[in-house]
Amino acid sequence: MTLIERLDAYAKMTESALEAALASPNEATYPAIFKAARYSALGGGKRLRPSLLLEFCRVCGGTPEKALPFAAALEMVHTYSLIHDDLPCMDDDDLRRGKPTNHKVFGEATAVLAGDALFNRAFETMLDPAVLQDFSAETVLRAAGYLARAAGMDGMIGGQALDLDSEGRRIPQDMLMQLQRLKTGCLIKAGAQMGCTLGGRADAETLEAAERYADSLGLAFQIEDDLLDIEGDITRFGKPIGSDADKSKATFPSLLGAERCHALVRELTDDAIRAVQHFPDHAFLADLANFLVSRDY
Amino acid sequence: MTLIERLDAYAKMTESALEAALASPNEATYPAIFKAARYSALGGGKRLRPSLLLEFCRVCGGTPEKALPFAAALEMVHTYSLIHDDLPCMDDDDLRRGKPTNHKVFGEATAVLAGDALFNRAFETMLDPAVLQDFSAETVLRAAGYLARAAGMDGMIGGQALDLDSEGRRIPQDMLMQLQRLKTGCLIKAGAQMGCTLGGRADAETLEAAERYADSLGLAFQIEDDLLDIEGDITRFGKPIGSDADKSKATFPSLLGAERCHALVRELTDDAIRAVQHFPDHAFLADLANFLVSRDY
Repeated sequence: MTLIERLDAYAKMTESALEAALASPNEATYPAIFKAARYSALGGGKRLRPSLLLEFCRVCGGTPEKALPFAAALEMVHTYSLIHDDLPCMDDDDLRRGKPTNHKVFGEATAVLAGDALFNRAFETMLDPAVLQDFSAETVLRAAGYLARAAGMDGMIGGQALDLDSEGRRIPQDMLMQLQRLKTGCLIKAGAQMGCTLGGRADAETLEAAERYADSLGLAFQIEDDLLDIEGDITRFGKPIGSDADKSKATFPSLLGAERCHALVRELTDDAIRAVQHFPDHAFLADLANFLVSRDY
Repeated sequence: MTLIERLDAYAKMTESALEAALASPNEATYPAIFKAARYSALGGGKRLRPSLLLEFCRVCGGTPEKALPFAAALEMVHTYSLIHDDLPCMDDDDLRRGKPTNHKVFGEATAVLAGDALFNRAFETMLDPAVLQDFSAETVLRAAGYLARAAGMDGMIGGQALDLDSEGRRIPQDMLMQLQRLKTGCLIKAGAQMGCTLGGRADAETLEAAERYADSLGLAFQIEDDLLDIEGDITRFGKPIGSDADKSKATFPSLLGAERCHALVRELTDDAIRAVQHFPDHAFLADLANFLVSRDY
């Protein structure tokens, strides 16, 4: 299987699991919230986080199919965070993945609730008694615990809060690193941790390798994203790098310059690839690290 | 111990547990989110839900102190739902428990995040590995699962969604019952279910008795609340019952009339007291049912 084929297979599996997780006998009675939740959860997206979870499960000797409730949960947490981020009181975005944002389609009240609902469904899905057919209660607790901590005030929500706190001022490089690690890194790392745990190989050394891979990959991806933002602008608007009117938000290129950023992306990608050598069957994960920072992703 | 003394003791225990759950090494780095979360979580409130959880734990033979992470989690879920309900795009309320609402003090963006953060912290607290010192992984999973299902799209969030869907139209009595059962009843019931589970006595008959008690008590409390709303108005504004300008929202008195509502409150309270006879040591729970619908609560 090529990288793209496997990524595609993981995305399809995750989407089926999301469909199943969002089914409810109450859908006919109050349809709007279910529609809104589906709209965002099934509205495209690369399914990077669940794919990492499923692949780490596989390379740790587990069966990715069994880990699907957790992959869907991870993606629901990611999706809820996007819905709430896009709200008028937050980033006030009209478009997400090329489609109108949730609140643009369903209104703000339903969008807040749909976010809450997806967040909640993540835990319902992981804590469903049916999951105990495939995993011990200890394993379920450990995997769900990784997600809970990664998504919270000392993880993703913390990153959002730090972002709000630092609005309008230029923060130093180390704080920008911390912000990105919290805001996007934690959830990517949770995918790796959950995958190893569900795959049945979660000794300290294995977890450390998986975490280092996820951390480096997440940061590389974020810096590349920042680079694409400004270098994309040159093509689109003919603006030179760094001429953005909105300089209030610190980005890696604005702090370090584009050249240093390109080098950093390479270093971090190489570090991710080195880390993942710990796993015997690491070809997909290594290829993925390169692919994520290629302009084709 | 009198009813009030025990209620007070449970409230204090819950508040200490909330304090502990909200501590974080990141508080100095981005203080606003922690302040906002504490403001609502520790800003008063009767702690009815955690008190039920702790008392059901006790009457089932467990140690309430050990159940505190779950009591705090239940209260955090309740608190987050109030913060999000009060948002301008939802009920747009300026006051809660006599104090300015969260978004009035911290702004909408931080209020959305603080709600998310409390919700998340509920699961972090229940899934903390330290909890395994007092409960088996199976018990933790079962208790946390009750809360997850009660709070979700087929529970509390579903009630909110149904409420939004039915805005501006008069809904029939059975739908109003369903709405209230979902919106407030589910979380009260979860307290009873979690308490029995953590107390180590969660056979089908016991759970059924606890659920019937919580269901009747929750509904009685809601109807009494509706009654106080309109009958309070007579004293305060000299308006006759039912003269409210805002008739767009269905309430029990507007559908059934005050007299039938008073009778229903009595019937439901009696039913709750009958249900709880299942437990040998039920004096507190029976007294509580009477107290909740007394005008002193």
